[in-house]
Amino acid sequence: MKDFGLDVWSDNNFIIKHDTININYGLEPSLYEITQQIRNQGYKGPLLLRFPHIIKKQISTLFETFNAARETFDYQGTFNAVFPLKVNQFPNFVHALMDVSKEYNYGLEAGSKAELVIAMSKTPLGAPITINGFKDKEMISMCFIAAKMGHNITITIEGLDELESIIQVNQEFNEESDTPILPKIGVRIRLHSSGIGIWAKSGGYNSKFGLTSTELIEAYELLKKHNLLEHLGMIHFHIGSQMGDIAPLKKALREAGNIYAELKKRGANNLSAINIGGGLAVEYSQHAHDKERNYSLSEFANDVIYLMQEIAKNKNVPQPDIFTESGRYIAASHSVLVAPVLELFSQEYHEKCLRLKSENPPLIEELNDLYNTMSRTNAREYLHDALDHMESLLTLFDLGYIDLEDRSNTETFVNLIVKKAIALLRSENTDELKQLQDRVQEKYLVNFSIFQSLPDFWGLEQEFPIMPLTHLNKIPTNPASIWDITCDSDGEIEFNRDYPLYLHDIDLDKEEYFLGFFLTGAYQEVLGMQHNLFTHPTECIINFDETGNYKIDGLIEAQNLMDVLDDMDYDTSLIDKTLKQHIELSERLTAEEKRELLGKLYLHLSENSYLKTIQAIDELI
Amino acid sequence: MKDFGLDVWSDNNFIIKHDTININYGLEPSLYEITQQIRNQGYKGPLLLRFPHIIKKQISTLFETFNAARETFDYQGTFNAVFPLKVNQFPNFVHALMDVSKEYNYGLEAGSKAELVIAMSKTPLGAPITINGFKDKEMISMCFIAAKMGHNITITIEGLDELESIIQVNQEFNEESDTPILPKIGVRIRLHSSGIGIWAKSGGYNSKFGLTSTELIEAYELLKKHNLLEHLGMIHFHIGSQMGDIAPLKKALREAGNIYAELKKRGANNLSAINIGGGLAVEYSQHAHDKERNYSLSEFANDVIYLMQEIAKNKNVPQPDIFTESGRYIAASHSVLVAPVLELFSQEYHEKCLRLKSENPPLIEELNDLYNTMSRTNAREYLHDALDHMESLLTLFDLGYIDLEDRSNTETFVNLIVKKAIALLRSENTDELKQLQDRVQEKYLVNFSIFQSLPDFWGLEQEFPIMPLTHLNKIPTNPASIWDITCDSDGEIEFNRDYPLYLHDIDLDKEEYFLGFFLTGAYQEVLGMQHNLFTHPTECIINFDETGNYKIDGLIEAQNLMDVLDDMDYDTSLIDKTLKQHIELSERLTAEEKRELLGKLYLHLSENSYLKTIQAIDELI
Repeated sequence: MKDFGLDVWSDNNFIIKHDTININYGLEPSLYEITQQIRNQGYKGPLLLRFPHIIKKQISTLFETFNAARETFDYQGTFNAVFPLKVNQFPNFVHALMDVSKEYNYGLEAGSKAELVIAMSKTPLGAPITINGFKDKEMISMCFIAAKMGHNITITIEGLDELESIIQVNQEFNEESDTPILPKIGVRIRLHSSGIGIWAKSGGYNSKFGLTSTELIEAYELLKKHNLLEHLGMIHFHIGSQMGDIAPLKKALREAGNIYAELKKRGANNLSAINIGGGLAVEYSQHAHDKERNYSLSEFANDVIYLMQEIAKNKNVPQPDIFTESGRYIAASHSVLVAPVLELFSQEYHEKCLRLKSENPPLIEELNDLYNTMSRTNAREYLHDALDHMESLLTLFDLGYIDLEDRSNTETFVNLIVKKAIALLRSENTDELKQLQDRVQEKYLVNFSIFQSLPDFWGLEQEFPIMPLTHLNKIPTNPASIWDITCDSDGEIEFNRDYPLYLHDIDLDKEEYFLGFFLTGAYQEVLGMQHNLFTHPTECIINFDETGNYKIDGLIEAQNLMDVLDDMDYDTSLIDKTLKQHIELSERLTAEEKRELLGKLYLHLSENSYLKTIQAIDELI
Repeated sequence: MKDFGLDVWSDNNFIIKHDTININYGLEPSLYEITQQIRNQGYKGPLLLRFPHIIKKQISTLFETFNAARETFDYQGTFNAVFPLKVNQFPNFVHALMDVSKEYNYGLEAGSKAELVIAMSKTPLGAPITINGFKDKEMISMCFIAAKMGHNITITIEGLDELESIIQVNQEFNEESDTPILPKIGVRIRLHSSGIGIWAKSGGYNSKFGLTSTELIEAYELLKKHNLLEHLGMIHFHIGSQMGDIAPLKKALREAGNIYAELKKRGANNLSAINIGGGLAVEYSQHAHDKERNYSLSEFANDVIYLMQEIAKNKNVPQPDIFTESGRYIAASHSVLVAPVLELFSQEYHEKCLRLKSENPPLIEELNDLYNTMSRTNAREYLHDALDHMESLLTLFDLGYIDLEDRSNTETFVNLIVKKAIALLRSENTDELKQLQDRVQEKYLVNFSIFQSLPDFWGLEQEFPIMPLTHLNKIPTNPASIWDITCDSDGEIEFNRDYPLYLHDIDLDKEEYFLGFFLTGAYQEVLGMQHNLFTHPTECIINFDETGNYKIDGLIEAQNLMDVLDDMDYDTSLIDKTLKQHIELSERLTAEEKRELLGKLYLHLSENSYLKTIQAIDELI
């Protein structure tokens, strides 16, 4: 566990060099070095680091693997890809994405009006745009505007009502035109095969999206009736996100391939593409025994190309162009959240904590005895006795029979006895012992919000790789729980015996300790919740130049306190005025004190909402 | 189920009058009438309605119940309450809260710097402010500024390091002062008893917050050493949110009461208050068989007062003042989210959908036979045959042996057979039958985002009461699933046989249908996720005047598309310029077309991101 499962999840993007985790690119700087450079400029709190070179790697790997498969099978259709904006709409990501993908004619997918505006303004004219999700007439009208701008845009219809809206909007936009310009039309098909994984509901007959065969035939006839059949260009399906198993994809490809062929044979002459949606999984696991994905990208690409070709040949129709909308695969690995550990809450009780009196309650004396006479042979029995005594003593306290010092001695003795028992019984490794071990974990208070930065951990128990940025030449020995700084007991990544995380024993008075949370680039930012008003962390882009040196670009600090309130629609000038008045009108303060307090107040208001200095670390910096 | 469990969850805040759900206050307007009045002003999409009179009711009930308990027992301490801002920090709520609570000296609790700024500017001087959660020196310094302003503020320390920071900050602020002003100091105690409910982790020895007895004694000694003992005013505990069972509270009260008494006896002379945190549960259940709460507010208040008095008498110490931090209880009921149903996706297949050919595949002919000859006695067997044939037919399609029309006929026949079997076998009510019934639910596409407006449903499977605003004189018959408008298959409240929701069969071409989501006032707003960039819905305050008439105040529309992007730090002027250029430079458009497109584009950009018109409804409005 010294390497924190790096070979399982990191895809060679990171390497350990001596005692730090470094970027496997350019001159291989360490994450710690980059972090310190940013912190030295005064940016404290959690940092989100983005690495465009990793986005580029993902995109080029995707295209190269599919093109290799096309070559292997001598496939006649093209390969195309778009990025589904819902996975990450943040400008520093989207701009980097469009920048590194130029040579691939890479496009964007939008599922809402706001995403459509991003797609219309950031996709190069000619690169594909696809529009999924439920749409009103206004959104369809925006798609027509995009088409008239010259965009290569496809509207995927999710229900027959949307097709009727398209017909209406087309009349509005093109009725008087000799050379009508309109978006391509796609149809989402509802597959019978259902997906696999947490998000499996995306596929299958009860899924939220797509047309049944019966509706598909109706749509076909409606298009034909309104002379729009020539605009039907794509069929689309999506079997679910983070697809761990390849089997359902194969079944879905057969289903979709046959629907494509049937529509072609029926007369959909310009239908030329199958959009296989997203689903390409990311390996989030830090533990080799529990991988999330059972296939390689090559296998995925070969399956798609082979099956589409086979169906097209059998049914004697042209081999379709392939579109994918993989987002998690493209975005997840590009960012790392770095957060400082603020404090270690150990459950360390030493003998010196004991406050024994000259006369103690009998049960305390017994605990003392148990602790001192515990040996390998009686350890289990004594442990059980101690736990039983603890229950009794706590009850005695609750009923007013013993005092606070007795209670404190109870805590200390039981903790000492548990630790002694664990040491004596180490070789036995029983369930009971493991549970006791879990109780003596170390708690690492970390300067970030799980709700803001790892919402899928809260909502879906999605694990993310976690490791310290330094100390990697030492074996970590503390079973660790991670606490965030929200006032919410859910803001905790508990120690899990099945996927244990061990961290180092650090004296934060003497040195700093940072944790990296990896693979946070997909979904986590836009799903981020503002619990306790902790907002999006400070972010920046790490670019590498030709010499391999890195530079820090696009630095956006987390919002300051007043901006947070402004965004919630507070009248911040009124807040400002009230606070000032409270100081000005205070009768207990001198004029000088008032001036000084105002200065301090405004300094605080100008800072972001994360924690900055914990006393001990403060002495250091 | 005609009344949607109103008597279980609504606490008489709402009543059904004829066919609508109405507010049980003033002239008892219907939610539908209010909704239409707002929509007629052009605000479409989901609406969040806030009702300050309900906040007032909750606050006054809380105070009156506790004061009644104090009178019953002749309790010597006072009763005080603060609102924990993390539950709802939105200005329209906070302003209403402070407005209706004036007579109670009601205060605010803050758990982060941004919340502290709200507390400092919105709490009347003198009303209590409590500060919980992890704090750095800056946050503690802000608390000292608040104290110097004249605020009645208590810092709850969560660990010994925070106490050391307080000692340091006190030196900075008061070293040269003859009349030092500093916040009161509170200590969070870590209880042995653990809580109950989803959020149980808040309590117990492994909880994220609080000092053990051993740490408590250390804190006591540290305070004494630095001459700060006289500022120790409060002990604080919190056993978890949405406490369904009263038993753990009693245990915690005994524990905390004895700790209070022990500290008093030890010499903490100014320690006068016990803060019992939050936890008071809200009845979210729509079904009498599954209530979430096993106690009344009176029982809760009596337990607190009685147990504290008993301990104080036994230990011969003054009876402590009681503070509560109930937030969910105060805020949950004050708001209702109203969202229009955009579309019904029925799984209705009629015989007229069949597209039988003169010659059909043998299995289709068999399905036809099964359908036509099905009777009560053979229904089960025929049903099983049909499901088996469907599997075979779908596989035949996937392998290219049958065509799209055959596949469509398969869907239709199987659906018809399932419905016929359900009708014939109604009296049997077997599990298999129920499962089939679940499959033929109606899907209601609703113009809102579950991620934005019901995040606890996504993250914690928390149920919220749901009912239509109209049609309440008719028994709803459709087992209903609710789909939101995000591109995410998780955006669905699936039909659940254990807590079934039935809705009406509506022809949306002819009439509108709105759903109300109730008890959404606690946590849901600030936890709201911007999935697909759907932001906080349009909100307003419904105030009643003395005549009982309502008026609509504080209307804040959901952000328009450009503001959404601006908030994400997009350069919106660049986006604007790019879009304009795409139109201006297009060679396929005439000057007049360009002008017209620009006009349409800017109209769309000025609207909010929710859906506006679905074709059918559009004709109506």
